[in-house]
Amino acid sequence: MELNRSEKDFLMQAIETASANISDGGGPFGAVVVMEGKVISRSGNRVISEHDPTAHAELLAIRMAAAALGTHDLSDCVIYSSCEPCPMCLGAIYWSGIRRVVYASDRYRAASAGFNDEMIYSELALDSGSRSIAMDRALTDEGDRVFSLWDNYPGKILY
Amino acid sequence: MELNRSEKDFLMQAIETASANISDGGGPFGAVVVMEGKVISRSGNRVISEHDPTAHAELLAIRMAAAALGTHDLSDCVIYSSCEPCPMCLGAIYWSGIRRVVYASDRYRAASAGFNDEMIYSELALDSGSRSIAMDRALTDEGDRVFSLWDNYPGKILY
Repeated sequence: MELNRSEKDFLMQAIETASANISDGGGPFGAVVVMEGKVISRSGNRVISEHDPTAHAELLAIRMAAAALGTHDLSDCVIYSSCEPCPMCLGAIYWSGIRRVVYASDRYRAASAGFNDEMIYSELALDSGSRSIAMDRALTDEGDRVFSLWDNYPGKILY
Repeated sequence: MELNRSEKDFLMQAIETASANISDGGGPFGAVVVMEGKVISRSGNRVISEHDPTAHAELLAIRMAAAALGTHDLSDCVIYSSCEPCPMCLGAIYWSGIRRVVYASDRYRAASAGFNDEMIYSELALDSGSRSIAMDRALTDEGDRVFSLWDNYPGKILY
C-alpha cells in the first residue's frame, strides 16, 4: 500500500533499527510505536543479549510504550515493524489494543533467514492434540473454579 | 489426562497462584515453570498492576525462568498453567523451546469470564487482510534487505 510521508518515515525507522540491531548483537528485527504522529518507543530484538525468548522487537516496543504512557491500553497507537509480527507479537498487539500494524518484510522471508514464525503460525492453527509440543489437560474443575472466583470478585478490572 | 503426584502438585501451584493473584490486583491466571522436578519460576498475571499488556502469567514465568537460568533456551522445562495459554503465551512457549504444557481450564471458560483468548486465536488464523486490525505492508524491498544483511553477517547466532 502507499504510505504518506510520515508513515513511510516511521516504517524506515523500524527498518533502520533492525539493520543497526544486527551489529549490536541482536536479531534482524526492529519496531516503533507511534501515537498521534510521535514516536513513543523503539526497539530491536534482544533475545540473545538479554537471555529472554520473549524479547522480540514488537513485544519490547509495546512494553516500553505502555510503561511510558502508564497504561496497558495502547488503542491510540500504531506499530511499525521491519517484518510481519510473529504470533507471539501479534497476540501482544491484540492485547494492547493497537488497531493498525504497518510492516515491510514477511514471515516467509523470515523463515528463509532461519526464523520459525511461519511454523508457529501453522502450529497455533492446529488443535492442541496435533501440535509438535505436548499439551496435557488436567484438574479442569479446579482450574474453572478460579474463573468462578473472578466472576464474583467485586474489585475486578477487565482488560 | 492422569498426572503423577508431582505433576499434579505443580499444576495445583499454578492454580493456587491464579486464585491468590485475584485479590492481589491481578487477573485470574497463574503459571509455574519446572525443570528436572524443581520449580524455577512462578507468576500471576500482572497486566493491570504493571501497566503491561504482555504481563500474562505464562509470559512472565518464562521471562523469569530464562533470567534465572541465564539462557533464552528453556527446552528442558515444562510449563504448568491454570488455563490454556493464549496465542501470545503459546508463541512465547514455542520461542522458548519448552516442549510440554500442562493446563487446567481453557480458552472457552476464559472467554466467558471476559478474556479474548478465543477471539485472538480466530483472528490469527485469518489472512492479514481479513483481520479486525489493519495490517498494511510497504517498503518490502527495504525490509527484505535487512534479512540479506543478516544472511551475510558472520557473527549471527540463530535462536
